Amino acid sequence: MTLDEVVGLTQPVNRDSGASAQRRLDRLTKPLGSLGRLEEMAVHYAMITGDVKPNVPRGVVFTFAADHGVAREGVSAYPSEVTPQMVLNFLRGGAGVNVLARHTGVEVRVVDIGVAYDFGSVPGLIQKKIMQGTNNLFREPAMSRAQAIQAVQVGIDLATEAAREGIGLIGTGEMGIGNTTPSAAITAIMTGRPVADVTGRGTGIDEAGRVRKVQVILDALERHHPDRADALDVLAKVGGLEIAGLAGLILGAAASRVPVVLDGFIAGAAALIAVGLQPLCRDYVIASHRSVERGHQTILEYLALKPLLDLDLRLGEGTGACLGMGLVQASIKILTEMATFDEAGVTERD
Amino acid sequence: MTLDEVVGLTQPVNRDSGASAQRRLDRLTKPLGSLGRLEEMAVHYAMITGDVKPNVPRGVVFTFAADHGVAREGVSAYPSEVTPQMVLNFLRGGAGVNVLARHTGVEVRVVDIGVAYDFGSVPGLIQKKIMQGTNNLFREPAMSRAQAIQAVQVGIDLATEAAREGIGLIGTGEMGIGNTTPSAAITAIMTGRPVADVTGRGTGIDEAGRVRKVQVILDALERHHPDRADALDVLAKVGGLEIAGLAGLILGAAASRVPVVLDGFIAGAAALIAVGLQPLCRDYVIASHRSVERGHQTILEYLALKPLLDLDLRLGEGTGACLGMGLVQASIKILTEMATFDEAGVTERD
Repeated sequence: MTLDEVVGLTQPVNRDSGASAQRRLDRLTKPLGSLGRLEEMAVHYAMITGDVKPNVPRGVVFTFAADHGVAREGVSAYPSEVTPQMVLNFLRGGAGVNVLARHTGVEVRVVDIGVAYDFGSVPGLIQKKIMQGTNNLFREPAMSRAQAIQAVQVGIDLATEAAREGIGLIGTGEMGIGNTTPSAAITAIMTGRPVADVTGRGTGIDEAGRVRKVQVILDALERHHPDRADALDVLAKVGGLEIAGLAGLILGAAASRVPVVLDGFIAGAAALIAVGLQPLCRDYVIASHRSVERGHQTILEYLALKPLLDLDLRLGEGTGACLGMGLVQASIKILTEMATFDEAGVTERD
Repeated sequence: MTLDEVVGLTQPVNRDSGASAQRRLDRLTKPLGSLGRLEEMAVHYAMITGDVKPNVPRGVVFTFAADHGVAREGVSAYPSEVTPQMVLNFLRGGAGVNVLARHTGVEVRVVDIGVAYDFGSVPGLIQKKIMQGTNNLFREPAMSRAQAIQAVQVGIDLATEAAREGIGLIGTGEMGIGNTTPSAAITAIMTGRPVADVTGRGTGIDEAGRVRKVQVILDALERHHPDRADALDVLAKVGGLEIAGLAGLILGAAASRVPVVLDGFIAGAAALIAVGLQPLCRDYVIASHRSVERGHQTILEYLALKPLLDLDLRLGEGTGACLGMGLVQASIKILTEMATFDEAGVTERD
């Protein structure tokens, strides 16, 4: 499916299925509503999928990797060579996302959508490189509109293929030295909040570094005038390839009625782009956690998403998404495995 | 071990082991501190156990069941017959705690420490009944001091036996219609906060019911004058048998250097008693979640515990503890399964 087709095919979530799931939850052996957000999550899953007695879904977290020309402006505590090094770490299973994915029984799929490194043939790596990292958005648009659309298409294709395979839960992950800079730029534009308010310390730059990062973004916005009403324009001018891929992943999943568990700040920026292209997407995403990165809270408020976890995470990769996916699985088991009052012979309330 | 022996044997946690664990975390392929509370938790686990490269522990949640004479005062939305019915539901695996325990790979052990029902011989039930439910604390002390000590001893024994078996992570669970009333009474006494501030709706009584519940507790405190400086006196006069068992479980686990993951409000009241008997216990507990029940926040603040989860849960049974135990397991895997910068050949920060 093309981007236009995906946008056209996306349907509102099914409120009737959600109501059916809630009716079942209300017959289970527990006081009404006493499992709080686990119940909300089970209802949400039913609304998205239309399935009121779902099996526990197979989950996949897609970790998109890409480089950023803007990293040359000293906006990150780490050099760009870390991006391909971490890709290899993902493939060997040694990174945080691998550990937490194994913990929750989720598969990690690693996608090179724009790393500035030639991997050659590497088993397990999904090779979808659009370009060798974005251009330096401080000086020129990060990519062309055509490249942005290509990168979004990569995500759409991966999500729709996963849905066809029977994957019932998709998580977002990313790796890209410098990628909190384009994410902050996107957040400022799409939410209308000041750049300084949504720009944080990323992997750990100091306050002077943060001030420089804010100035880099302000200059870029001044130079490129991205059009808030045209999410692809924003993505092309100040975005990143992994952000584009994630936006496509969200769009493809929503069109396929597969819930998407968002990781942190970069995933949030991708969600802003996806929702900019198709507002119905918003109801297909679940926020796994509240990141330490300051702009994330702005995104959560803007999209009216309530994160499941608040564990002071700021690693990315999909680490928070994996933990969130575990909670979604738990909520589905509550819906389907608990006994009802009738089945258990338990007296209902007075 | 007797209560006095357990209190005498409890040691401070090992800060050196915590520092060693933090040094390892700082060499892993992630920005320093970027896994936030997962890192804190791994450090905490190392401090408690002294093990800086722990295996993922076997976990058990102990669900203590007991009845409460005060349930006759209309303080609960459910009748007392639900307590034994739910015990049977636990044993058949149909309750919320069973579902979430299976989800996180934790075993549920169900303990009858004072249910007002004769179960006869029931496979799987740990039979440690002290009495057929407490006396009605509105009219007389809930139990004698000797009975309170016996109930505490049940918990101590279960924890120390579990530690000998190699169980490395203990969760607290409970079932007892009416048990938010003794828990609120204990919370008010031990923290010094007004009864009305720490008394909530339990399984779902209305505001008139809550007002009655507050009055029942106020009258009981007036009548029995429990002595805050003597936690056993508080426990005997206004406590519950499952609360006593849980207090013993915490004491026994702390003396055995096994971390205890607390569930919600009732577990918190038990922790207040345990900490009243041996203040060092406080460092051996992990708060799994913040309950909706209003007195729980008071306990968390009083004990300076920061809950891992905030999912609007108020079911009890050990449901929140199971989810928290899953996060503790995840934190241990982060500590032990992630690659270091050296191992992965990843460049460290500039």
